Amino acid sequence: MIPVLEIFGPTVQGEGAVIGRKTMFVRTAGCDYRCSWCDSAFTWDGSAKDDIRKMTPEEIYEELLSVGGETFDHVTISGGNPALLPQLGGLIDLFKEKGISTALETQGSRFQPWFRDISELTLSPKPPSSGMETDIDKLHEILEGTAGQNVSLKVVVFNEQDLAYAKHIHQLFPEVPFFIQTGNDRLDEKDHAKLLVYLASRYEWLINLVMPDSDFKRVRVLPQLHTFVWGNKKGV
Amino acid sequence: MIPVLEIFGPTVQGEGAVIGRKTMFVRTAGCDYRCSWCDSAFTWDGSAKDDIRKMTPEEIYEELLSVGGETFDHVTISGGNPALLPQLGGLIDLFKEKGISTALETQGSRFQPWFRDISELTLSPKPPSSGMETDIDKLHEILEGTAGQNVSLKVVVFNEQDLAYAKHIHQLFPEVPFFIQTGNDRLDEKDHAKLLVYLASRYEWLINLVMPDSDFKRVRVLPQLHTFVWGNKKGV
Ligand code: SF4
Ligand code: SF4
Repeated sequence: MIPVLEIFGPTVQGEGAVIGRKTMFVRTAGCDYRCSWCDSAFTWDGSAKDDIRKMTPEEIYEELLSVGGETFDHVTISGGNPALLPQLGGLIDLFKEKGISTALETQGSRFQPWFRDISELTLSPKPPSSGMETDIDKLHEILEGTAGQNVSLKVVVFNEQDLAYAKHIHQLFPEVPFFIQTGNDRLDEKDHAKLLVYLASRYEWLINLVMPDSDFKRVRVLPQLHTFVWGNKKGV
Repeated sequence: MIPVLEIFGPTVQGEGAVIGRKTMFVRTAGCDYRCSWCDSAFTWDGSAKDDIRKMTPEEIYEELLSVGGETFDHVTISGGNPALLPQLGGLIDLFKEKGISTALETQGSRFQPWFRDISELTLSPKPPSSGMETDIDKLHEILEGTAGQNVSLKVVVFNEQDLAYAKHIHQLFPEVPFFIQTGNDRLDEKDHAKLLVYLASRYEWLINLVMPDSDFKRVRVLPQLHTFVWGNKKGV
């Protein structure tokens, strides 16, 4: 059984390599990290534990159909850290069988053999501002285990120290498509226009740091697009 | 000689398949279209004709180096319609020789053999609101001539009629990666916060139309990201 917190969509993927892609979302419960700025803390801090449903792959697929109907051919699995769940393999297999492509994001603290069946895998190691430590050996193991696949690295950046960390990761794995993303440190801002202006200014701040830096050449710098549209709302 | 209007960067690619990519820009002069909402009308309306410089590939490359230094490995060629220029082949060859990858966008009214050497080619046929007619046979010819390459289709959408046109194009070429992009019809808005809120609302409008539509599955819906940061400023 898979612990599920949210099933929603279709909506646009707001981040990373397939930003803008029409997708459904399945959000699993549980994380082995406790990032200081986690925007999905409800997946692990106990606040939503009564909402967790233990579901079979078939039940998840049925709910995706009942929510999304005939409108989608792509599902993003997010968390929490879905890589904690060896049993996700059955769901990925079912999606494959149904012709549905899949994206999955994980911080890279665990490898699962079913990573090999993910259409777009994003490894998002966490920078110093998160308060977490990165297991570089594990990143190596995952990247070796998924060689030849569509895998990218993404680092969320809140400050210059985070950007130095991003550079370190990029230099360790120069051949892996690399994304630098602005973080959102205004998770409580309710005024949409204010948040928008702030997030755009943070994106500009990041662009202005990365552009003159010759250690960052083959990189993509992106915001979290969904926050530009829906602010801090969940389930969209 | 290549008629050049702007050389700038590095900055982020604001649109399409490699949105966010660090890139330099070379903007060529001249267009065979006259789109009603063209955001680069100065490339063809005569207003900037005294700024056009006839440059050799070597001169363009030198200027890219002097502006961008060691910070880049990617150049976007935009217009106008750069596909009007058979002589661009020499520049593309020079970039290849220097290890620089290239992106190019054109509306798809002309084919050039050097399309085959573009790393990321975007065909952006113009919807009804532009006032232009699409040559579908030419799109077929270009897509056949660049088969196996990294080519995508992008349609800018201002209204529902444009979206119906986008659907038609997507259905004609279902295998080609397809991008739907919000247009900017407030080219004169100077108030950045106001423009930002407006553009985000237009993006949401487009998402809300595309998401429930089962004829759009494998699609990506994106804004013009650079307008979120720099508004209607040029050369950034
Ligand atoms: S790894 Fe992701 S889900 Fe887990 S605490 Fe960090 S940000 Fe939150
Ligand atoms: S094809 Fe592009 S450059 Fe030419 S008029 Fe249309 S929008 Fe402007």
